[in-house]
Amino acid sequence: MAQKELLVSNVDKEMKIALEKYEEPKDIKRVLSGMRPTGKIHLGNYFGALKTWIELQDKAECFFFIADWHAITTSYEDTSKLSQNTLEMMADWIAAGLDPEKSVLFIQSQVKEHAELHLLLSMITPVKWLERNPTYKEMMENLKDRDLATYGFLGYPVLQTADIIIYKADTVPVGIDQLPHLELSRDITRRFNRFFGNIFPEPRPYLSEAPKLPGLDGRKMSKSYGNCIYLSDTEEELRKKVMSMVTDPARVRKTDPGHPEVCSVFSYHKIFTDKKQVKEIEENCRKGQIGCVQCKKQLFENLNTFLSPIREKREKLLSDKETLSQIFVEGSKKAREIAKETMEEVRKAMNFFTF
Amino acid sequence: MAQKELLVSNVDKEMKIALEKYEEPKDIKRVLSGMRPTGKIHLGNYFGALKTWIELQDKAECFFFIADWHAITTSYEDTSKLSQNTLEMMADWIAAGLDPEKSVLFIQSQVKEHAELHLLLSMITPVKWLERNPTYKEMMENLKDRDLATYGFLGYPVLQTADIIIYKADTVPVGIDQLPHLELSRDITRRFNRFFGNIFPEPRPYLSEAPKLPGLDGRKMSKSYGNCIYLSDTEEELRKKVMSMVTDPARVRKTDPGHPEVCSVFSYHKIFTDKKQVKEIEENCRKGQIGCVQCKKQLFENLNTFLSPIREKREKLLSDKETLSQIFVEGSKKAREIAKETMEEVRKAMNFFTF
Ligand code: SF4
Ligand code: SF4
Repeated sequence: MAQKELLVSNVDKEMKIALEKYEEPKDIKRVLSGMRPTGKIHLGNYFGALKTWIELQDKAECFFFIADWHAITTSYEDTSKLSQNTLEMMADWIAAGLDPEKSVLFIQSQVKEHAELHLLLSMITPVKWLERNPTYKEMMENLKDRDLATYGFLGYPVLQTADIIIYKADTVPVGIDQLPHLELSRDITRRFNRFFGNIFPEPRPYLSEAPKLPGLDGRKMSKSYGNCIYLSDTEEELRKKVMSMVTDPARVRKTDPGHPEVCSVFSYHKIFTDKKQVKEIEENCRKGQIGCVQCKKQLFENLNTFLSPIREKREKLLSDKETLSQIFVEGSKKAREIAKETMEEVRKAMNFFTF
Repeated sequence: MAQKELLVSNVDKEMKIALEKYEEPKDIKRVLSGMRPTGKIHLGNYFGALKTWIELQDKAECFFFIADWHAITTSYEDTSKLSQNTLEMMADWIAAGLDPEKSVLFIQSQVKEHAELHLLLSMITPVKWLERNPTYKEMMENLKDRDLATYGFLGYPVLQTADIIIYKADTVPVGIDQLPHLELSRDITRRFNRFFGNIFPEPRPYLSEAPKLPGLDGRKMSKSYGNCIYLSDTEEELRKKVMSMVTDPARVRKTDPGHPEVCSVFSYHKIFTDKKQVKEIEENCRKGQIGCVQCKKQLFENLNTFLSPIREKREKLLSDKETLSQIFVEGSKKAREIAKETMEEVRKAMNFFTF
């Protein structure tokens, strides 16, 4: 256990170092990011990544991909839901606001060139760099006796690097916890360039301030905790979930003075409710002049206003799977063209025999 | 040093275990093997691998590939000769007797599907299996302070497995030292089949008795020792090399009785000279009735008879690079068709979203 804590603090230390180095990138030209299709998208995913992507669409050339190969790294024993999850992610993305007219939306496994570049990068990446990866170290500690520590899991930063640089993306929107990985990607890129010429730009991280959105039970929103609100939740599901949210435990009766700062419902109001109302709720809660039930009903209405159009668009998209997947066929084709060009350059730089 | 010896004996132990398990495969249907294009082919390569391949051509459906991706695993700092080496290997192979009418001859990097399967297999291969690989352990010990220990080097048995099973090859001609790798390939294959259904046959090794052919200085023939006879040596080069070969050090004068069993020249005679003559040489050497110079001249004639047609064919092939590479274009196309089919099956079995 002491060992575990030590490791966690290693992770924190790595993050701190990464954060200190962080500079907001200027003149963003090409953005790339991906998401593993492990299930339906919840509000945590939305605010943690998708929202930033949607905003970036208007600022740069964007490439977003469903990382289905990466999805296998941690759940290879059971891939039975992979196809369905991929489809749902397609719908979630577009319903939430990713726009195929603005961004290239594609599926990783449809662009084999990622696998080729991954293989070539693997040849120049020291094993030690990967073993030092804080996420890997933490995982190794947690899994000790399981054989989840696969070669692919050890190497996923190599694949991640290939994913990014094959499009010569200069900017990658990431969460704070991913900063060390991007640092590793930059190291690998630099090493490749040193050996084979200056082919790839070093990708820079783009950190967004994601609002803290707890799960229904107040913990981090996570599929494995079963505490998520999904973009796909029906109105009824949403109502039930909101009404079940934990609030300030000090409030037993409506007239008990509350502490909004410790209440999950209030965290949501700060995002989904207009400022004036938020202020009222805060005041009334502190004075014991509003009941939690009423407060939640209000949140439900506002959340539903936000989610309704997404939900409807999502359903419509899924009612015509042909058209939906066609968007990703087209996107994958566009991505592949660029990836192919890059790989030709790489093969030439590495002196592969070409016909 | 003691540590080193321990490791070497580990390797020997692994080999012994592998050898004990070895059974000559029956009903060979599809054969696959590859060679890294690290330079011109020498007689050691010829007798160690190529000769067996040439014989197998008439017994089974054969796939032979130039392993240019593998070539990077150990020499990534300098790939300047990769393209030229690949071309020379094409010529060496066909000149020596590999026949594109009988075998599929192709280039690894031309079949991207190998990289895709490699990536998928990486997800299910425990790092520990790779770390246990005796060749890796030995390399790690020898390289200690160098960063040659790359992710790709650690994982080359994974790529090797992909190379083999993507064609559903049942038999792989290997040298004794590669038996542990093939054992690892079988383990990886079995694991994949367990998770995703019985898609791949477990490849079996095919061991051939390669005659021991020392280098010019009596050590193992190896490019790095500079003691090789190449298929491409000119007549003059060949003559000079043969005349410089080490013989029985006990012979100073022609009349000194010799010991053919310790003489490199004699090892060659046993392969390139007819049995009757070999017997005469042996007797005359022991009696001190033949001089080493004369003995070498005789060897040169016989070796040259063997190498002349290969050398000529080789030159002819290299005088028309277009036609030569076309053979490998065609072969790569054939290989790719089969690899594509296999990958469709794999993607389906793993539940990737398919359009
Ligand atoms: S009134 Fe609203 S903000 Fe206050 S504790 Fe109840 S749910 Fe939370
Ligand atoms: S006579 Fe021939 S076999 Fe005898 S030592 Fe000399 S080279 Fe070797």
